[in-house]
Amino acid sequence: MIDTIITPRVSETDGVGHINNVFVPIWFEAGRRKIFSIFSPDLSFKKWKLALVNINVDYTDQLFLKDDVHIKTWIEKIGKTSFQIGERIEQTGRICAKGTATYVNYNFRNKQPEKLSDNVKKSLEALTIK
Amino acid sequence: MIDTIITPRVSETDGVGHINNVFVPIWFEAGRRKIFSIFSPDLSFKKWKLALVNINVDYTDQLFLKDDVHIKTWIEKIGKTSFQIGERIEQTGRICAKGTATYVNYNFRNKQPEKLSDNVKKSLEALTIK
Amino acid sequence: MIDTIITPRVSETDGVGHINNVFVPIWFEAGRRKIFSIFSPDLSFKKWKLALVNINVDYTDQLFLKDDVHIKTWIEKIGKTSFQIGERIEQTGRICAKGTATYVNYNFRNKQPEKLSDNVKKSLEALTIK
Amino acid sequence: MIDTIITPRVSETDGVGHINNVFVPIWFEAGRRKIFSIFSPDLSFKKWKLALVNINVDYTDQLFLKDDVHIKTWIEKIGKTSFQIGERIEQTGRICAKGTATYVNYNFRNKQPEKLSDNVKKSLEALTIK
Repeated sequence: MIDTIITPRVSETDGVGHINNVFVPIWFEAGRRKIFSIFSPDLSFKKWKLALVNINVDYTDQLFLKDDVHIKTWIEKIGKTSFQIGERIEQTGRICAKGTATYVNYNFRNKQPEKLSDNVKKSLEALTIK
Repeated sequence: MIDTIITPRVSETDGVGHINNVFVPIWFEAGRRKIFSIFSPDLSFKKWKLALVNINVDYTDQLFLKDDVHIKTWIEKIGKTSFQIGERIEQTGRICAKGTATYVNYNFRNKQPEKLSDNVKKSLEALTIK
Repeated sequence: MIDTIITPRVSETDGVGHINNVFVPIWFEAGRRKIFSIFSPDLSFKKWKLALVNINVDYTDQLFLKDDVHIKTWIEKIGKTSFQIGERIEQTGRICAKGTATYVNYNFRNKQPEKLSDNVKKSLEALTIK
Repeated sequence: MIDTIITPRVSETDGVGHINNVFVPIWFEAGRRKIFSIFSPDLSFKKWKLALVNINVDYTDQLFLKDDVHIKTWIEKIGKTSFQIGERIEQTGRICAKGTATYVNYNFRNKQPEKLSDNVKKSLEALTIK
C-alpha cells in the first residue's frame, strides 16, 4: 500500500470552511504517482499509457486545513488490459474518503487498449497488499 | 435539465494534451450551481446546507481545449433527507463523461441530516425532466 | 479589449468565504484564450509558442461566488520577441483585480525566443484598444 | 527561511508538457502556511486576518512533473499594517520562479487594516533570515 502525505492548502478549502470535495479526486490522483511510474518510468508524457475509465468516491467525513492527510493507495483488481485502484484518505485517524479508480492501459496513438505486460502485472501485484 | 456552458482553460489540460480527469468533477460541481441556490438562495455560505456523500464518474471520451463543453445536470432521485443528481458532459456532440452525485441536506451546526422541505422538493422535482 | 465572462465556482472560494486569490491568475489566463489562438490558431499544443515570463497582480477588492465576473484583457506593449498583456477583473461594477502578464514568443524545440511575425503583430495591435 | 517540499501532480501539468504557470502562485501560497499560522495559530478561518494585496512572479525556468520542488519563503519587509513575503521555487537546483507577495493585516469585520502587534512582528522578523 502506498502512503502519500499531503499538506492541505488554503486554496483547497471552500466557503463552508472545509476542504472542498473536488480536491479529493485531485489528492487521489496525486496518490497514484508510483502507479503512473510503472507505466511511464520517468513520468514523461511522450509515452503516457493510462486512460481513466471510472472513479467512485464516498465522502465519509470532513477534511480540514489544519492537519496533514494520508492518501492510502493500493491495487484492488488486475484485468487483461485494465486494473482497479483502491484508495482512502485519512486525517487525524479518521477515514474521510474512500474510492476506486479504474484505468485502462491505452495506446493513445492507435487509440486501442493494450494488454498489460507481465512485468507491469508483477509491479501492480506488489501493490495489492493492503 | 440545466445546461451550463464552460470554456476549457489551458490550466485544465495536462501533459497528455487533453483536459485532465480531475477537472470533470470540478465542471460537474460548476453545473450544480442552480441546485445549490435552491438551498442557499443568495449562494451565501452562512447557511450552507449541502454535504456531498458520493460521486461516480464514467469517463467515456476525451475532452479537448478547443471547444466549449455543455454540462447537463438534472435530478435523478429525491429521498427524505438526500437526493441524487445525474450529470453529463458533452463536447462537439460527443458524450465525454457521465456521472451521479449524491447530496444530503445537512445541518452543519448540529451535525445532523435534515428532511428536505416541501418547497425544496418541489424545486428539485422541476429539475427531474431530462 | 476582450471581455470574458466567468461564473465563479464553489471550488474557487476559500474558508474566508470569498474567491481565493489563486483563482485570479487562473481567470486571467482564461481571459487570454483569444491571444493564445493568435499563436496557435486551433489551440493545439503541437506548435505552442508562448512562454510566460512575468505576472503582476494587484488585488483591489473582494470577489464573491454570487455574481459573474468580467475578465477584461488587452495588449499593453508589443516588443520584438515579447509582448505585455493588461488585464482587469470586474464584478458588479467593482474593479477587483488588475494585472499584467508578459509573454515571450518561444520556440520550445530549439529553446530560443523568436521574433514576432508581422501578421502576429497586426493581430496583437488590434487588441491594444482599451 | 521556510522550505516547503511539494511533489508536482499530473493535474498540475498542461498540454505543453510542463507544470502550468497558474500552479506557481498556488505553490507559493502553500509555502506561506507557517506565516498564516502566525496570524491564525490553529489555521481556523473564524479569525482569519490576512488579505493579499499584490503578487509579482518572475517565471525563470520550466518546472516538470518528475522531481520534487522546494518552495523557499521568507519575510522581505515589515510595515505598520502590512508586510512583504519573498519566495522562490527550486527544482533540481534550478531557480524556476521568483516572487513577492504583499499582505495586509486586515480586520474582515470592520473592513479596516490593523496594526501588526509586537508579537506578530517578532514572529515575522524571525523569518527575515534568508
